[in-house]
Amino acid sequence: MQIAVVLYDRFTTLDAIGPYELLGRLPGAETVFVAKEAGPVRNDQGNLALIADKTLAEVPRPDIVLVPGGPGDNEVKRDPELLAWLRAADATSTWTTSVCTGSLILASAGLLKGRRATSHWLALEELAGLGAESTGERVVFDGKYVTAAGVSSGIDMALHLIGRIAGDETAQSIQLLTEYDPQPPYDAGSPEKAPASIVAHWRGRA
Amino acid sequence: MQIAVVLYDRFTTLDAIGPYELLGRLPGAETVFVAKEAGPVRNDQGNLALIADKTLAEVPRPDIVLVPGGPGDNEVKRDPELLAWLRAADATSTWTTSVCTGSLILASAGLLKGRRATSHWLALEELAGLGAESTGERVVFDGKYVTAAGVSSGIDMALHLIGRIAGDETAQSIQLLTEYDPQPPYDAGSPEKAPASIVAHWRGRA
Repeated sequence: MQIAVVLYDRFTTLDAIGPYELLGRLPGAETVFVAKEAGPVRNDQGNLALIADKTLAEVPRPDIVLVPGGPGDNEVKRDPELLAWLRAADATSTWTTSVCTGSLILASAGLLKGRRATSHWLALEELAGLGAESTGERVVFDGKYVTAAGVSSGIDMALHLIGRIAGDETAQSIQLLTEYDPQPPYDAGSPEKAPASIVAHWRGRA
Repeated sequence: MQIAVVLYDRFTTLDAIGPYELLGRLPGAETVFVAKEAGPVRNDQGNLALIADKTLAEVPRPDIVLVPGGPGDNEVKRDPELLAWLRAADATSTWTTSVCTGSLILASAGLLKGRRATSHWLALEELAGLGAESTGERVVFDGKYVTAAGVSSGIDMALHLIGRIAGDETAQSIQLLTEYDPQPPYDAGSPEKAPASIVAHWRGRA
């Protein structure tokens, strides 16, 4: 089973690494980081580069496609080469997945038309505008399309996926090894739970 | 405020990226990934390299030191150059932190002697053997030393730290932007909660 994690300039690191850390532990999985060109790809904060070991062209038929979000999505949504690769990879994938605004990229490739999907809470409207049925849920399955909400939600998505692919015991085993027993000191992780003033601040800037 | 994330061969990616993603959003923070040599550093799964932009020597006085864990800790715990850098950086740091078996590295540098600290659940005994008062807690503060349990716990640690450094509102704001509203589909993230057979399996292999 081959997992392709798609990198592009100004992706959000945890979008990719959260699910990667868990999915990469699937027995028999081979994970490869891909980009238009092989080599370093800078993230959204600009202070870290991950290396894409292979070009998109070298990985034409991954079993799982994972598209992270990030401010760089604005360019990617209009990039014919990357969107064409996504459509071609999707034609043979078992699972096509995204985290955060990665769903805007999948939707821009035409893959989420009429499908239930999610995204970062500040991007749900844009997702709907791209033809998806935009939900505010944290992890959404619609057939083989799996989308997760903002940034950290990809970890939850990965556990769901591992359960579907390899069963509950493997998922629990990987949860234990990564000690995913969240204990956040605040309860402000969604617009429904965060203080209204903070939500309004970010809505105003979006 | 300068944050140094220490990379070494066979580190665990999420140990570094989980807290980085949140801490890096601290207003006024400058984050730099450092290693003995600048350039690509391969992770524990072997299928991903992160680029260390600077050498340890180029970053002598970070305000926050973050040491991830990973199977590569075995070499690092015996690496005089890295341990000497840690001791020197710690002499002027505001916070010295670790995730997972990163605490074994801090302890090997002599920084956790008699201090309350934590680590991956499979490494708590070794941590105690290195002179720390080993707790099974998820995030442990002892003065300026902050240690987190396995892999994903670094995200919780980062939120705690952000609260201490910049206040509750900033922490909640960053929690909201990263949508850290965990909803794992299983409750197996600690040895107390996971099925006993899975815990026994990993204890047997440790």
